[in-house]
Order: sequence, then C-alpha cells, then structure tokens
Amino acid sequence: MKAIILFGHGARDARWREPFDRLAELWRAQHADVPVELAFLEMMQPSLEEAVATLGAKGAKDITVVPVFFGQGGHLRNDFPVLLDACREKFSQITLSTTPAVGENVAVLQAIIDFGASAL
Amino acid sequence: MKAIILFGHGARDARWREPFDRLAELWRAQHADVPVELAFLEMMQPSLEEAVATLGAKGAKDITVVPVFFGQGGHLRNDFPVLLDACREKFSQITLSTTPAVGENVAVLQAIIDFGASAL
Repeated sequence: MKAIILFGHGARDARWREPFDRLAELWRAQHADVPVELAFLEMMQPSLEEAVATLGAKGAKDITVVPVFFGQGGHLRNDFPVLLDACREKFSQITLSTTPAVGENVAVLQAIIDFGASAL
Repeated sequence: MKAIILFGHGARDARWREPFDRLAELWRAQHADVPVELAFLEMMQPSLEEAVATLGAKGAKDITVVPVFFGQGGHLRNDFPVLLDACREKFSQITLSTTPAVGENVAVLQAIIDFGASAL
C-alpha cells in the first residue's frame, strides 16, 4: 500500500501548522485511497519517524515523503537525509522515497504568483 | 505606481533562495509593469526596509508585501508587523499593504497536493 508524508519545518506557535492540517484534509478528500500523515522537523509532532511508524502500522509499504519547504537549504540537504536514513534502517520493510521541496515545483510557484497578482 | 515585495524567511544556505529568485523571474515575465523585489526576515539580503527603499526609488507609491511563508506563526504575527511599522514610519509617502501568508491560499495548497499526487 502506498502512503504519503507531508514533511514541514515546524514552529513554536501552534497556529503555524494550520496550512499543514488543511493540506492533510485536502489530501484525504481527494486521495482517500492513499493514507497521509504530517511530520515535522522540529518543534511540532509527529516526527518523521513517528509518521512512518503510524503509516507502517496501517500497512503502508511504499511511502513518499514530500518536503513542504520552499527552499532546499541546510534542513533539506543535511538534516532531512539523516532522518530519512534512520527511518530506512528502522523500517526496513518500508520503501521510503522523497521528492524535491514543493518550492521547486513551477505550478506551486505559479500559484504564489497568481495569489500575489490577485492582491494588487 | 504599484509594486510588490515577496517576503521570505531567509536561510544560511544560499541555495535556499533559488525558488525565491525563480518567483521574482516569473513575476517579471508576467507582470512587467509592476516592479518586484524579494526581501528576507533574516540571514539573507535585502531586508524589508531595503526592498521598500529600492522600490520607492523607482517611484513606487503603493507596495503590496506578500509573505512567502506556509504558516502564520511568530515570525508573521510578531516580527513582521514590527518591521512593517518601521517601514511605514520611515517611508511615509509609500502605502504598504500586506496579504496573508501564501500558505493560506487554497490554490497554493492545491498545487502542493497535485505535486504530491504526481510523485506517487
């Protein structure tokens, strides 16, 4: 079974995660056959490892982790691969693959442009 | 004259800003009549104040600041209003308005969902 993890940075203010909760709701409404979990690098729960465990317990064998970050800086180039390797070691029966950061996707950038243009 | 500032967090790794540079390029290609500047909260240049000064020097009188953040946490709720007020005081001839974070926009979230779905 396939599953997806939307992986964000995390923040001290609980309201920061609202768009992430909305993303998970949208995913569930549109892709009900593919379980989704959020995961956060720091300051919020669950961790990547906890999210993988949750999906693994539901029978996921093939999990795609989507970094919901704009840029690919130190967090994605250094911290994220370490977390991912630890998950691969701990959950050897699960295939974990990743995508570039969502900020690398031109449709995401175009949506931001259109949002800005609509606000002028 | 109207102008726009795309305001991001900033990061230590210079490669983090690549999507922001791409956003500015997309904006210039599609909205050539509305000057755009990037600005960053920390760790990258220019600051919000520097970006406002640059656009003011070009004759901008009405600047919309779009926070290119997912969530509205402490940075947008606490730090950003302080910076904005300082700019309003310093550049009293310029009208500065803002939008919610781009992560509040459903089209941006939908583009992220579609990106994730295409990666499964």
